[in-house]
Amino acid sequence: MAGDSINISLLGAGTVGGGVWRVITEAEDIAKKVGAEISIRHVLIKDMSELEGDDVGLDRALVTTDPDVALGDPEVDIVVELIGGIRPALDFILRAIADGKHVVTANKELMADHGAEILDAAEAKGVDVRFEASVGGGIPIIHPLKESLAANRITRVMGIVNGTTNYVLSQMTDEWCTLEEALGEAKELGYSEADPSADLSGRDAAAKATILASIAFNTRMTSEEVYTEGIYDVTADDIAYAAEIGYVIKLIALAQEVDGDLDVRVHPMMIPMMHPLAPVGGPYNAIFVEGDAVGEVMFFGQGAGRMPTASSVVGDVYDVARDIRNGCPGRLGCTCFREHSIRPIGDVHSAFYIRMTAADRPGVLAKIADAFGKHQVSLASVIQKESSGMAAELIFLTHETREKDLRDSLGVVSELEVIRQVDNVIRVAPQLG
Amino acid sequence: MAGDSINISLLGAGTVGGGVWRVITEAEDIAKKVGAEISIRHVLIKDMSELEGDDVGLDRALVTTDPDVALGDPEVDIVVELIGGIRPALDFILRAIADGKHVVTANKELMADHGAEILDAAEAKGVDVRFEASVGGGIPIIHPLKESLAANRITRVMGIVNGTTNYVLSQMTDEWCTLEEALGEAKELGYSEADPSADLSGRDAAAKATILASIAFNTRMTSEEVYTEGIYDVTADDIAYAAEIGYVIKLIALAQEVDGDLDVRVHPMMIPMMHPLAPVGGPYNAIFVEGDAVGEVMFFGQGAGRMPTASSVVGDVYDVARDIRNGCPGRLGCTCFREHSIRPIGDVHSAFYIRMTAADRPGVLAKIADAFGKHQVSLASVIQKESSGMAAELIFLTHETREKDLRDSLGVVSELEVIRQVDNVIRVAPQLG
Repeated sequence: MAGDSINISLLGAGTVGGGVWRVITEAEDIAKKVGAEISIRHVLIKDMSELEGDDVGLDRALVTTDPDVALGDPEVDIVVELIGGIRPALDFILRAIADGKHVVTANKELMADHGAEILDAAEAKGVDVRFEASVGGGIPIIHPLKESLAANRITRVMGIVNGTTNYVLSQMTDEWCTLEEALGEAKELGYSEADPSADLSGRDAAAKATILASIAFNTRMTSEEVYTEGIYDVTADDIAYAAEIGYVIKLIALAQEVDGDLDVRVHPMMIPMMHPLAPVGGPYNAIFVEGDAVGEVMFFGQGAGRMPTASSVVGDVYDVARDIRNGCPGRLGCTCFREHSIRPIGDVHSAFYIRMTAADRPGVLAKIADAFGKHQVSLASVIQKESSGMAAELIFLTHETREKDLRDSLGVVSELEVIRQVDNVIRVAPQLG
Repeated sequence: MAGDSINISLLGAGTVGGGVWRVITEAEDIAKKVGAEISIRHVLIKDMSELEGDDVGLDRALVTTDPDVALGDPEVDIVVELIGGIRPALDFILRAIADGKHVVTANKELMADHGAEILDAAEAKGVDVRFEASVGGGIPIIHPLKESLAANRITRVMGIVNGTTNYVLSQMTDEWCTLEEALGEAKELGYSEADPSADLSGRDAAAKATILASIAFNTRMTSEEVYTEGIYDVTADDIAYAAEIGYVIKLIALAQEVDGDLDVRVHPMMIPMMHPLAPVGGPYNAIFVEGDAVGEVMFFGQGAGRMPTASSVVGDVYDVARDIRNGCPGRLGCTCFREHSIRPIGDVHSAFYIRMTAADRPGVLAKIADAFGKHQVSLASVIQKESSGMAAELIFLTHETREKDLRDSLGVVSELEVIRQVDNVIRVAPQLG
C-alpha cells in the first residue's frame, strides 16, 4: 500500500472491466466511505487491439499486456479479476494470493469449480477473496447469505439467475413466439452473447447454483454435481398450457436440503403465478431464500450488464479496503464447514407437468392412468386439449413423486400403443415454506 | 470476553427478545461461522411477572430486573437492546458504549431520532453499533446499502416498510372491505398491535424512512423532517378507482435526491401495477433501491414478527462477534458524511390522483379544468363515475406538478359552487429510473 491509497490491478478491460474503471474513477467520497482512496495502478489486457473498443477512457499509461507488470507490483493491494473463464484467471488469482494480495472476482465458473482451492489458499495467506458479482450481477446475495442471514439454517435457495433465458422465456410467454425468435430479440437488445449456449444449456445457471448452494449450506461442491437441463425443449405450447393451469415456466436454480442431503439442480420449472418469482420478467434476476428464522426473503435486480456487475465488484473492493484499513483481512473467509451428500436426481421428489400426444379414442386416459398408478405416480389433474385429426394432446399434472418412479412410469406409458409420443416433462416448483 | 466465548446481555425478553433467545440457544455451528461461541449472560426484564409470558424457556438463572446486573458485568461484550422506545433504551445503550461494549438494536425510533448521538459515542469508543432489524424486520437492507451497494450514488429508496398498513390496504384491495374491517382481521392474525396508531399514522414508517434516507444519502436527519401522512383517509372507493386506472395504493416510505435536496416522505401512494412493489401484499415488506450503477434492486420479505426480526438481530450479533474476534471493532461505522437540505413538501413535484364530488351538470368539468390550469396544474386524465342523484364523482389524474400549486388550485376548485367536496388527494409514485 503506497501512502494513503489502496491500489488495485484490474485484470480485464472488457464490458465489466470498463464499468469498474468508470465507477472507481468517477466515484466521490471513497475515502469517507472506506477510510482510504482507491487507485487503479494497472489495467491488464490481452492485446493492445482491445483498446479500440475502449469507451470509458482508460488511462493508457496504466494499460499493460504483461501479467508480470499487473501482478508483480508490490504496491498493489487488491487484484480485481474480470477476465472470466478458468485459465489464465485461476493462475493469476493464485499468484496474487501467494503474493499476499487480496482478490475480487466476478468469475462464476472459476468460483464454482475452483472455489475451494482459491479460498483455501486465501485462508492460508490471510487475505480476502470476494465474489459478490459472480451471482446475480448487481444484486447483493452472497454477502447477505454469509452475514445478515447467517443466523438462519437455510432450507432452500431458489432463483432466476440467468437473464438471457429469463428474457427468452418471458418473451415466449408474452409474445407467444418461438425460442429462436425470442433469442434473436435478446441478441439485438444485448441481453444475449453471440454464443448463448452456456445460457440456454443451463451451464451458466449451474455455476451460480453451485456457488449459492455452497454458501447457503456451508458445503463445498462443484458444478458437475448440479443436475442441469437447459430450456431448449420448452415450447410456446408448454408456456400456454402452464398459464392455463396457473403457472409460468422459468429456468430455475434450486438448492435445498432434503433429509440431510442437498438437492441442487437447474432446469425449467413450473412456478405458481402467485409465487414471488413468477412476475420476475425480462432480463431480471431474483433469488428467493427460505430460512428457519427469517421465513422467506427475496432479492431482485439486474443480474448482468456492465454497470450492475461493476456495482457489486466495486462494493467488494470497498469491503476489502475496509478490511485492509482496519487490519482484519480474512475476517470473512470460507464458510464451508459441513459436508452433505448430493441427492441423485432419480431420488428427488417433485410434482411434474407432462405433455403427450395420444390417440383420440375412448379408454386412452384409463390406460395411461393405470400405467402411472402402477408406478406410484398419482395424478393431480388431466387436461385433454382439442384434438386435431386422430390425435389428442394430453396435459397431466402429477402429485409429488420420486423422479425415478416418474421416469419408469413414462417408459411404460410411452410404449402404450395409444401413445404417439411424450412431448415434454417439466418439474413443478416445490411448495413454499 | 471470558475465555473463547463472546458474551451478550439481552435487554428485553418480549416477542423479539424471546426469538433472539431461541435462535442463539438453538443455533449450531456458531463458532464455525464467526470464530467464537456466543453465550447469553443476562436477560434483563422490567418485572418478574413478564416471565409468565415466557414461551421459549428462558434460563431463570440469567434473568434479572436490575439494569446494573445486565449492563455492569465487565464480561459482557455485546448488549442487545430489544426494549423499544426512547427511555430507558437510550440510557442503557449509551452506558454500554461508554463501558466499551458493542451494541445491537432493533429500535427504529431510537436510531431514527438519536442515531447521531449513539453513533458518535460508538465512534469515540471504537465500538460497533448494528441495527439491521430496525428496518424491514428480517430483510437485509441496511448492510447491503452500507456495503454491497456502497459503490453507487443512490438516487432513490422506496419501500413498503410497515406490515400492518400493507396488510390492511391489501385486504381492502382484495376483499373490498373498510379500513376498520381489515384492521380487525389484522389484529386477529397478530399483524397489528393492540394500539395500531403508530402504524396507521405513518409514524412507524417515518422512523424507518429516516434510517433508510440517512444511510442511502449519507446524511443525518430525524423523523421530524419526514413529511408523514397515514392511511386513515384511504377508502375502498379510492382503491377501486386506482385499480381501474392501473394502480394499487400502498403506504410508501420514499427518499430521493432531487437537485441536491432530499425529498423524504411517508404517505399513501398510487403505484403502477407493473411496478415491482405493486404485488407485495399482506404483511410483507419490500424496499426498492435505485442507484447509478446497479440500476434497480429490490429486497423483499417479512418486515416484522418474532423470528424474522430475530434473524436480523442475531445476524448483527454474529457480525459484531466477527469484528471482536478479528480485532476490528468500529470497522463499519456511521457513514453520514454529507449534508443535504430537506425539500419542503410544498416544493416537491408529484403527479396526483384527486377524487371529488361535483354537481352533475354541463360545464362542470370545464370550470374545474380552468381552475387547475390557472395554477399550472395540467390534467392527464379525468373519469366521471356514474352519478347518484344530483352529484357526480370525478377522478382526476394530474401530470407532475409542484405540490404547492396543486394545493393552491384545490383551494380554488373547492370554492367553485359546482363542487360539493374534494374527497381525497393521493400522490402518484415517481417514474422509475
